[in-house]
Amino acid sequence: MPLSLGEIVSRLGGELVGSDQVKIRQVATLEKAAPDTITFLANERYLRQLKGTRAGAVIVGEHLRHSIDTPHIVAANPYVYFARVSALFNPRPAMGASRHASAVIHPGAVLRDGVYVAPHAVIEEGAVVGADCSIGAGTYVGAGVTVGDGSMLYPNVTLYHDCSIGKRVIVHAGAVIGADGFGIAMEGNHWIKVPQIGRVRIGDDVEIGANTTIDRGAIDDTVIEDGVKLDNQIQIGHNVHIGAHTAIAACVGIAGSSRVGRFCRIGGASGIAGHLNIADNVEISAHTLVTKSIDEAGTYTGAYPFEPSRDWRRNAASLRNLAKLTGRVRALEQELKLRKKGTS
Amino acid sequence: MPLSLGEIVSRLGGELVGSDQVKIRQVATLEKAAPDTITFLANERYLRQLKGTRAGAVIVGEHLRHSIDTPHIVAANPYVYFARVSALFNPRPAMGASRHASAVIHPGAVLRDGVYVAPHAVIEEGAVVGADCSIGAGTYVGAGVTVGDGSMLYPNVTLYHDCSIGKRVIVHAGAVIGADGFGIAMEGNHWIKVPQIGRVRIGDDVEIGANTTIDRGAIDDTVIEDGVKLDNQIQIGHNVHIGAHTAIAACVGIAGSSRVGRFCRIGGASGIAGHLNIADNVEISAHTLVTKSIDEAGTYTGAYPFEPSRDWRRNAASLRNLAKLTGRVRALEQELKLRKKGTS
Amino acid sequence: MPLSLGEIVSRLGGELVGSDQVKIRQVATLEKAAPDTITFLANERYLRQLKGTRAGAVIVGEHLRHSIDTPHIVAANPYVYFARVSALFNPRPAMGASRHASAVIHPGAVLRDGVYVAPHAVIEEGAVVGADCSIGAGTYVGAGVTVGDGSMLYPNVTLYHDCSIGKRVIVHAGAVIGADGFGIAMEGNHWIKVPQIGRVRIGDDVEIGANTTIDRGAIDDTVIEDGVKLDNQIQIGHNVHIGAHTAIAACVGIAGSSRVGRFCRIGGASGIAGHLNIADNVEISAHTLVTKSIDEAGTYTGAYPFEPSRDWRRNAASLRNLAKLTGRVRALEQELKLRKKGTS
Repeated sequence: MPLSLGEIVSRLGGELVGSDQVKIRQVATLEKAAPDTITFLANERYLRQLKGTRAGAVIVGEHLRHSIDTPHIVAANPYVYFARVSALFNPRPAMGASRHASAVIHPGAVLRDGVYVAPHAVIEEGAVVGADCSIGAGTYVGAGVTVGDGSMLYPNVTLYHDCSIGKRVIVHAGAVIGADGFGIAMEGNHWIKVPQIGRVRIGDDVEIGANTTIDRGAIDDTVIEDGVKLDNQIQIGHNVHIGAHTAIAACVGIAGSSRVGRFCRIGGASGIAGHLNIADNVEISAHTLVTKSIDEAGTYTGAYPFEPSRDWRRNAASLRNLAKLTGRVRALEQELKLRKKGTS
Repeated sequence: MPLSLGEIVSRLGGELVGSDQVKIRQVATLEKAAPDTITFLANERYLRQLKGTRAGAVIVGEHLRHSIDTPHIVAANPYVYFARVSALFNPRPAMGASRHASAVIHPGAVLRDGVYVAPHAVIEEGAVVGADCSIGAGTYVGAGVTVGDGSMLYPNVTLYHDCSIGKRVIVHAGAVIGADGFGIAMEGNHWIKVPQIGRVRIGDDVEIGANTTIDRGAIDDTVIEDGVKLDNQIQIGHNVHIGAHTAIAACVGIAGSSRVGRFCRIGGASGIAGHLNIADNVEISAHTLVTKSIDEAGTYTGAYPFEPSRDWRRNAASLRNLAKLTGRVRALEQELKLRKKGTS
Repeated sequence: MPLSLGEIVSRLGGELVGSDQVKIRQVATLEKAAPDTITFLANERYLRQLKGTRAGAVIVGEHLRHSIDTPHIVAANPYVYFARVSALFNPRPAMGASRHASAVIHPGAVLRDGVYVAPHAVIEEGAVVGADCSIGAGTYVGAGVTVGDGSMLYPNVTLYHDCSIGKRVIVHAGAVIGADGFGIAMEGNHWIKVPQIGRVRIGDDVEIGANTTIDRGAIDDTVIEDGVKLDNQIQIGHNVHIGAHTAIAACVGIAGSSRVGRFCRIGGASGIAGHLNIADNVEISAHTLVTKSIDEAGTYTGAYPFEPSRDWRRNAASLRNLAKLTGRVRALEQELKLRKKGTS
C-alpha cells in the first residue's frame, strides 16, 4: 500500500520540501531507487550519487536542505527517519496464533494468546511463552524457560532450561542460550566439571544474532540488560553482565564474569578477557583484545595495522627486537649526554 | 570397486610410470597407505617419507619423475589429480528421491524430480527446490527460497525467506543464510531496528561451511558469486559482495557492504571492515584485519608475531611507547647533525 | 536434600574447622550466599568480601585456615573441592530411558539400555548409541556413528556419518562434528572439491561447547583424545590431533593437520596455523596466532596491546616504519662509533 510523502510526514514528522503528493511504495538505496521509492543520504560523500538518483524522495539532514531538487524530507537524524519509514513499509509479518501439529508442547508448558509454534518446535515442561510470540521451526524451548510477550525465536534456536527472555526479543537462527559455561578444575591430571547452575536472564528489546552463544552462569546468572543488540557469532561467557543498550558487532568474545557498561559499542571480532569492568559509553575497535578494566569512556584500539606482507615481515621482525631497540636508543642518548659534558 | 592404474590414467590422463596392472581401491596418506591404495606427493619435503610408503602407487609432479621406484602417475598438478582420483573412489552417495513422512512440506512449495527430504525438514510456501537436491534432517527452507539443481543442504541448516541458492551448492550443518543484518539506529537513548529487506543470492558451485552465517541485505541483496568456497564459522555481513572463485578460511568476518574481488584467498580468522573494496587476486593472511580498501593484487598481513610471553611482555610494553621512541631517534639524529655542523 | 558440613567432609575429605552440624543446601558465590549455602575462596583478593558473607561455610586453602570465623573446610585445592561439593548438590538429572514418538530412529540403529531420545531427534542406519546416553531434541546422529556409554548430546547437534564419540562425552547445542574439511584444489580457474573421507574420533570424558565445529579428516581421521575440554564456537580443521586433557577456550581456530600436545591450555580467540606441532604443556594466550611449531612447554603470546585510540594511532603508524627506525638507530650507532675513533 503506497503512502504519499504528505502521509509519511504526518505520521513520522520531519519537514517536507517539495510535492506532498508523490507516492512511495518502498525504501531503496540511492543506486537502485525507482520513482516510487524513498532513499536517504546520511553522508555528504554520497552527494554526487544523489544527483543521478531516480528516487521519488530523499531523506536528508538539515545541512543538505538546499542541495537537492528531488522532493526531500529534512530530518534531525536521517538514518533514524529512514528506519522508521522502512518499518512503515515493511512491518514484521504477523504469524497468527497457531500450533503446528508436529510441534511437541509439554502439557505443563503455558502458552499465552496469539502464540505461533512452527513445525518441529519443542517446548518443555514449565516453560511460559508470552502473548504473540513466534517459536521457529526446530527451535527448542527448555524446561522452565520464560519468554516475554511479542518475542520472536527464529528456527533452530536452543534455549536451555530455566533461562528467561524479556519482551519483544528477537533471537536469530542457531543461537544457543544457556549452555554450560566453561567451568573446569584440574584435579590431579584430569579436568573435572564444575556444575553450571546459574541461568541466563535477558531483558526487553534485545536482539541476538545467528549462531550467537550465551552461556548460563556458573553459580549466579549471566545477564543481558534491556535494549542490548548482539550481532552474529558472538560468544558471551558465564556470569558476564552486559549493560543496557550496548551494541556488539559480530564474532566478539567476552570471557567469564566480565561486566560491560551501558551504551558501549564493541567492534567486530574483538575480545574482552575475564573478570574485567568496562565503563559506560566505551567504544572498542574491531579486532581489539581488552586485557584490563576500562574506567573511562572513550575509544580503545589494539589491532595490528595490516600492510603488504613483505613490509609486514620486516616490521614484525623488528617488533620482536623492540625492547632491545629501545635499550639501544637509551644507550645512544646517554653516550651523547656524556660527550656533551665532556665537550662542554 | 577397484581400478587398475591403467584404467585410472585412461580416465583422468597423466603419464603412468610402472605397471598398469596394479589394482587400487582407495586413496591414502603416505603414512598409512596400503598396497591397494594410491597416494600423492605435492611437496619434496615429504620425499623421505615416500621411501617407506607401502602405497601401490603415487601421484607426483614432473620434477619427481625419476625419484621413485613405486609405480607413479606424473601429473601437472598432483593435488588436483589426487582430488580427481579420490572423487572416482568416493562419489557423493546418491540419496534417491524420497520425502520422509515427518518432513513438513507446504503444499505451495515446488520440489523438482529426484529430491530427497530428510526427517523433520521443513519447506515453506513458495519455496522451489531443484532436481536432485538433498534437504537434510531438521533443515529449514523458508518461504520463497529457491535452491538450484543438485544442491545439498546438510542437517540443521536454516535458510530465511526469499534467499536464492544456485546449482550444485553444498551447505553444511548449522549454517544460517539470510538472517537479518546488523542494522540499528540510535534514536534518543535506545536503538531502533532498521528492517532488513534485501535477500541473499548465492551462485552455482558454492560450498558453505558448518555454522557459517550470511546475512540478508539491508535494502539490496548480499551476493556470493559462483564458485566461492567458504569454510566453517564465517560471518558475512549484510550487502557484502564476494567475487567468483574466492576462497575464505574458517572464522573470517566480513563487515557490511564490503566488496571482495574474484580469486581472492582470505586466511583464517581475518576480518574485513565495512564499506571497503578488495581487488581481485588479493591474498590476506590469517588473523589480519583489513581496515582500508586494497586496490592491488598481492598478499597482505597484519598479525602480531607471537613469542614466549616474557619476550612479548617487554616488546609489547615498548610498543606502547613506539611513537615516543621514534621521536627520540629523530632528536638524536638532529643533535648529531648539529654537532657535525659544529665540528666542521 | 541438605547435607551437614560433617556429612560433606565425610564424603569428600578435607578438614572441617567449626561446627559439623551446619546444614548446607546449595553452593553460592561469596556475594549472594545465604546461611544454608557453602562458598569458596580461591584467591586472597576476595578476602575482604569474605568478611561480609552470609554463607554457612566457606572452602579455603591451607594458608587461609586462620583468617576466618565462618565455619570452613580446608582443602588442598579449594576450587576442585567446590566443584565436588557442587556436583553433590547438583547431580546431572537422569533423563530415564525413553524414546519420544516423534524421534526417527532407523531400524538398523542400535540403542543400548537406558537411552533417552528427545522429540525430533534423528538416528540413522548403523548408528550405535551406548547405554544411558541422552540424545537431544532435533539432534542428528548420522549413519554409522558410535556414541559411547553415558554421553549426552544437547539439542540441535549434528554428527555426520561414521564419526565416533567416547564415553561420558557432553556435546552442547549446535555443535557440528564431522562436516567436510576445507579441501579444495585450484584446477584451471576454478576450485574442485577434494573428498573428505576421514572421520572424527573423540575420546572419553570430552566436553564440546555450543556451536563448536570439528571437521572430519581429509583422508585419515581428526582425533580428539580423552579428557579434552572445548569451549564454544571453536573450529577444529581436518586431521587436527588434540592431545589428552588439553583445554581450549572459546572462539579458537586450529587449522588443518596441526597436532596439539597433552595438557595444553589455549586462550580465547587464538589460532594455530596448519601443519604445526605444539608440544605438551604449552599455554597460548588469548588472541595469539601461532605460526610456527612450538617445541618447548611454556607460555606464548602474540596479542597487540590495546590503548586509547589516539595513542594507538600514533604507535601503529610508527610500527609501519619500525624496520626503518631500526636502520636509523644502527646508522646512529655507527656514526657515534666512527666519531669515537675520530676523536680518540
